[in-house]
Amino acid sequence: MSNNVVILAGGQGKRMKVRSPKVLCRVLGEPMLEWVISACEDAELNDICVVKGFEGAQIDAYLESRDSKADIVTVLQEEQLGTGHAVMMAKDFLEKHADGNTLILCGDAPFIDRATIEGALALHESRGCGVTVVTSRAEDPTGYGRIVRNDEGIAGIVEHRDCTPAQLAITEINSGCYWFRTADLLEVLFDLQPNNAQQEYYLTDCVELIINKGRTADAYISENHNVSLGANDRRGLLMLNDIARMDIIEKWLDAGIEFTCIDGVIIGKDVTIGEGSRIDKGTELRGKTVIGQGCLIGSNCIIENTKIGDNVVLNNVQAYESVIEDGVKIGPYVQLRPGSHIKKGAKIGDFVEIKKSTIGEGTAVAHLTYIGDSDVGANVNFGCGVVTVNYDGDRKFRTVIEDNAFIGCNTNLVAPVKIGKGAYTAAGSTITKDVPPSALAIERGTATIKEGYAEKKLKNRTAKFENSRKDDQGH
Amino acid sequence: MSNNVVILAGGQGKRMKVRSPKVLCRVLGEPMLEWVISACEDAELNDICVVKGFEGAQIDAYLESRDSKADIVTVLQEEQLGTGHAVMMAKDFLEKHADGNTLILCGDAPFIDRATIEGALALHESRGCGVTVVTSRAEDPTGYGRIVRNDEGIAGIVEHRDCTPAQLAITEINSGCYWFRTADLLEVLFDLQPNNAQQEYYLTDCVELIINKGRTADAYISENHNVSLGANDRRGLLMLNDIARMDIIEKWLDAGIEFTCIDGVIIGKDVTIGEGSRIDKGTELRGKTVIGQGCLIGSNCIIENTKIGDNVVLNNVQAYESVIEDGVKIGPYVQLRPGSHIKKGAKIGDFVEIKKSTIGEGTAVAHLTYIGDSDVGANVNFGCGVVTVNYDGDRKFRTVIEDNAFIGCNTNLVAPVKIGKGAYTAAGSTITKDVPPSALAIERGTATIKEGYAEKKLKNRTAKFENSRKDDQGH
Amino acid sequence: MSNNVVILAGGQGKRMKVRSPKVLCRVLGEPMLEWVISACEDAELNDICVVKGFEGAQIDAYLESRDSKADIVTVLQEEQLGTGHAVMMAKDFLEKHADGNTLILCGDAPFIDRATIEGALALHESRGCGVTVVTSRAEDPTGYGRIVRNDEGIAGIVEHRDCTPAQLAITEINSGCYWFRTADLLEVLFDLQPNNAQQEYYLTDCVELIINKGRTADAYISENHNVSLGANDRRGLLMLNDIARMDIIEKWLDAGIEFTCIDGVIIGKDVTIGEGSRIDKGTELRGKTVIGQGCLIGSNCIIENTKIGDNVVLNNVQAYESVIEDGVKIGPYVQLRPGSHIKKGAKIGDFVEIKKSTIGEGTAVAHLTYIGDSDVGANVNFGCGVVTVNYDGDRKFRTVIEDNAFIGCNTNLVAPVKIGKGAYTAAGSTITKDVPPSALAIERGTATIKEGYAEKKLKNRTAKFENSRKDDQGH
Repeated sequence: MSNNVVILAGGQGKRMKVRSPKVLCRVLGEPMLEWVISACEDAELNDICVVKGFEGAQIDAYLESRDSKADIVTVLQEEQLGTGHAVMMAKDFLEKHADGNTLILCGDAPFIDRATIEGALALHESRGCGVTVVTSRAEDPTGYGRIVRNDEGIAGIVEHRDCTPAQLAITEINSGCYWFRTADLLEVLFDLQPNNAQQEYYLTDCVELIINKGRTADAYISENHNVSLGANDRRGLLMLNDIARMDIIEKWLDAGIEFTCIDGVIIGKDVTIGEGSRIDKGTELRGKTVIGQGCLIGSNCIIENTKIGDNVVLNNVQAYESVIEDGVKIGPYVQLRPGSHIKKGAKIGDFVEIKKSTIGEGTAVAHLTYIGDSDVGANVNFGCGVVTVNYDGDRKFRTVIEDNAFIGCNTNLVAPVKIGKGAYTAAGSTITKDVPPSALAIERGTATIKEGYAEKKLKNRTAKFENSRKDDQGH
Repeated sequence: MSNNVVILAGGQGKRMKVRSPKVLCRVLGEPMLEWVISACEDAELNDICVVKGFEGAQIDAYLESRDSKADIVTVLQEEQLGTGHAVMMAKDFLEKHADGNTLILCGDAPFIDRATIEGALALHESRGCGVTVVTSRAEDPTGYGRIVRNDEGIAGIVEHRDCTPAQLAITEINSGCYWFRTADLLEVLFDLQPNNAQQEYYLTDCVELIINKGRTADAYISENHNVSLGANDRRGLLMLNDIARMDIIEKWLDAGIEFTCIDGVIIGKDVTIGEGSRIDKGTELRGKTVIGQGCLIGSNCIIENTKIGDNVVLNNVQAYESVIEDGVKIGPYVQLRPGSHIKKGAKIGDFVEIKKSTIGEGTAVAHLTYIGDSDVGANVNFGCGVVTVNYDGDRKFRTVIEDNAFIGCNTNLVAPVKIGKGAYTAAGSTITKDVPPSALAIERGTATIKEGYAEKKLKNRTAKFENSRKDDQGH
Repeated sequence: MSNNVVILAGGQGKRMKVRSPKVLCRVLGEPMLEWVISACEDAELNDICVVKGFEGAQIDAYLESRDSKADIVTVLQEEQLGTGHAVMMAKDFLEKHADGNTLILCGDAPFIDRATIEGALALHESRGCGVTVVTSRAEDPTGYGRIVRNDEGIAGIVEHRDCTPAQLAITEINSGCYWFRTADLLEVLFDLQPNNAQQEYYLTDCVELIINKGRTADAYISENHNVSLGANDRRGLLMLNDIARMDIIEKWLDAGIEFTCIDGVIIGKDVTIGEGSRIDKGTELRGKTVIGQGCLIGSNCIIENTKIGDNVVLNNVQAYESVIEDGVKIGPYVQLRPGSHIKKGAKIGDFVEIKKSTIGEGTAVAHLTYIGDSDVGANVNFGCGVVTVNYDGDRKFRTVIEDNAFIGCNTNLVAPVKIGKGAYTAAGSTITKDVPPSALAIERGTATIKEGYAEKKLKNRTAKFENSRKDDQGH
């Protein structure tokens, strides 16, 4: 038996005023659809069908770019004829998985969570339900469908506008998320009728059809008060961002993380932070970032998909797709571009950029330096203003600097080049040849103009540039 | 017939604890007086008289520095004897415009708006009023003058302390802003008497005097709930800033602009933002900044009077009085000083300053570079650490870099100098002579000390320095 | 007679999830214990005994690092047997000061203040009390001990769980802070019994014991509503940070300081700010920082223990242990490391680091420059990319630049070196010898490799590195 998921993602969200599917609108930098899919993956539901509609190609593109654990297919709902109609589009998918249960989720209700999914499924299975509705308690249920309970489970879902005065007082509301026995869903799905003012096919009507067939229907009250929340416009979306932002900060407060002021602090849902660490104001932790114990991160850092060890201090640093080992100190005003690996105890000062390079243990890069495409050993000392000249206008090359080397101020290391173990380069040198271990290199040229030199290089560079423009237009 | 405006701007605002007129205290970086004048200009009221008092010269200086559409004169109220007395100071101005209507505004109530001004004037004219009071509904009217209505319009304005219990319940309050038929105002203005505890001349008494002459008085209820708001101290002023800040952010939310977190976001009232753009936390947009569609601005940018095209990405950038064309990416940690023009698709990396320069299409300035007083062509590549040496200690010169040039790392371009089309300069060169197209320049000098060289240059430089000190003292 | 203080600091604060005493948890960057001690010092109470417990050595280390005005001793409470037991540990200290009064403070209630301490002592002495309890009025007194008053003063303190319905309605609560006549405290302290569910010795019971001996007990109601506040977990601690942050900002608003948006603004309790200054968003003022009049600090500055004169403008600057004189402009993206002294009217541009250096009056350091260990005169002009080469891989040396010198772009000044008055250095030079006044120096070497040069230097450098690693491990 295989349980599966259908995610409704066809809506436009006109009031967001953007030409993209509503489910691609972002909460803490991730599309709402991403939140929903990753909750499914957390719950180990790996057969997912996304029903796309408006600008559906953008959803396909997003899913392709995503590193999915689940097996995700999409189907197209060409016309927006209601939630029931959307599920009908998944007919083939449902029939393929007809021996299990189907979870229906709204792609624009991002706060669904593993505990709710699993708790509702447990109830669904233990009670042998045809359908189990996920519900929550609302302080103000106005506008939501009310859950009418009876001795068997639930008698049905009544839309706000159809409620009796007694029903209006009900505070248990429909979240729009359901577990169906897939066979039962398929049995009633195509009996849905658009008998309503909007002439749409409502998935909620399936609940009644299943009850009418004598099957059990029940409701699972989620402890997650945000499970029903969605947004119709940018104000609502900002509110979802605020809720997510504060929920995550409170989770880390409970875990003992120190915050002095949370203004501008944004922590992604997949970030982890070790004990005894402190996050300062204005710091944004994105993606799969991992932070060790006893760190001080901030203020005003942006850290994306970066693994940080213990006792690291970052001050106004931007780091992307990098590794920072224990005891490293960096900042202020530093950028680590993808592929930087800063080893134990290294110190990076101000106005430094590092890219696709390894910086060895205990090495110091104090100020105003660019290290790109380089392998730097341990205990190396960089003077101020050092540049690894990795690009000759045509190709990129690597620089190798061995342990204990000392690179003088305002030195150019013209790659490919290797500075030997313990070698010195004098301030103001442009090093174009390898320097043997323990040597001192002072290398400065004389005035020359080579006419016509650049023509071949330019040809190659221009060709590349044209290609990169073509690439850009492809997006 | 010409309508005109008198703005009351004489107050000191002692509790602001600053030696300047209260109306020059700032909301979102602009003096409150600026908000009031620009609302008048929006409503195409171009004859304005500002009644100055405390430190009035500062108001004159501000108005001179301002690029005014309106014709603005000032008159001095030497003693602070009340709002009626302030208007008396404008006698000559009113007599000159006696055939029209006069709008009286408080210079320290910054949220007056065009719709209110025009709506009140429309009522004023259609009803043939002698005076029309602009009012608003207050949840808590305590302390404000109440509007007493009758069948004709209004019977008068009663100060809080003079209210009967029935009048205390009135929630329609006087905003302190009025449209008068100018001739009617002049007829009663000098009949005002300081018959009150403060011995001041109250402009509100003019309303009664006009009613007593049998003219019609009415009140226009503004939909803008903030129209009456002012501030007496720094806490109140911070509250006005908060209100303005949130009102503007909500306006842009309604227009579909994306915000993840609005902490530290400040958007000036005259800024415009195109569809599909996103503004990140800590970003400040000032002055007449224009942002195109599909941009990502932030976090922590300061953008002032800068025109930004479509699909621009700025990350921790400060830009002043500049132009950034479509598809440009800049940052992090970059400053564009006034007069920078970054053309389509250019890329500016980290720790770069640009000043009074054009950067051509597709040109890349990756890191740690200063480009000042330069004209840079298309598809130029700058190595790291390039410096345009635009100042010789005496005069400034321009650098010209033609299309497709490749400037090596840590190169000095000593202006005036021209790098030809497609030319290369080698890393570490100091280029003092023009480089022909497609040439490779390696130019490094030898050790020399020219004694006494600097004396003449210094003389010029010192003279300039002395002049600039004089200028500074003039402020 | 000498009054003295006992501070209870033994608790662990398990829910903070950090292996340190709870009193070392921070509010606005300072341990809670620091807030309490400095309130005592403000009140000129200079004999202090800190009762330490969990991880007490950390408290000793903190007190040693602190520049204390008071004479502070510590005693160890090995087991956590209640507040009364903690005070018993101070027996020797109390006997030594038995002729005066003893103030008992909770080390984790940081908002005690001088006015409360002095007001309570004045009441205590004027009424000849054996004990005076510091109290406050609580909107919601749930959980706090209630103060039961009678005609003599107070009849006792009743814990929440022991209150009659009438007592539950009392809103005057015990802050946990007391003035005792020391002799009276010693007389009853060792009569305390652990007759309660927790089997702890409660200091509150001393109040009853003293009353039973016929001495007067009274309560002093503090005007400081925060006097009782403490925190048990990170959420509570964040709330204390918020309260402190806003209280201090409001104090400066009342003093006339201008704020446009206070998001991310953190001002330390000991900072002072002069009239007419403005603090922009995201700015953090730490330690004993002093800011003069008419300054603009922000946005996103971090200023620590730095003295700033009048009319200084800082934009995105980090400054530590430095001095910035009148009229200086710095930023954006600048770091002043400890020991920087920027004299009147100097201008520091973007991407500049200064360390242990003096920058003379009117000197300009425009961009991308590092000045370390240097003495720079007045009206010096630095080109872009200048580096003071202060470290030869073994020792550090100073650079001297005299008045009116002009340092060309991308110049290395290899210390020890002196640039004479009014001298010029050409762009791209590496200056290794002193330059006479008014000379022009162009000094660039030629290509050389000296084999084996670095071996001795490396030996010294490696030795230093090993020592510094040992130092780091010592922390």
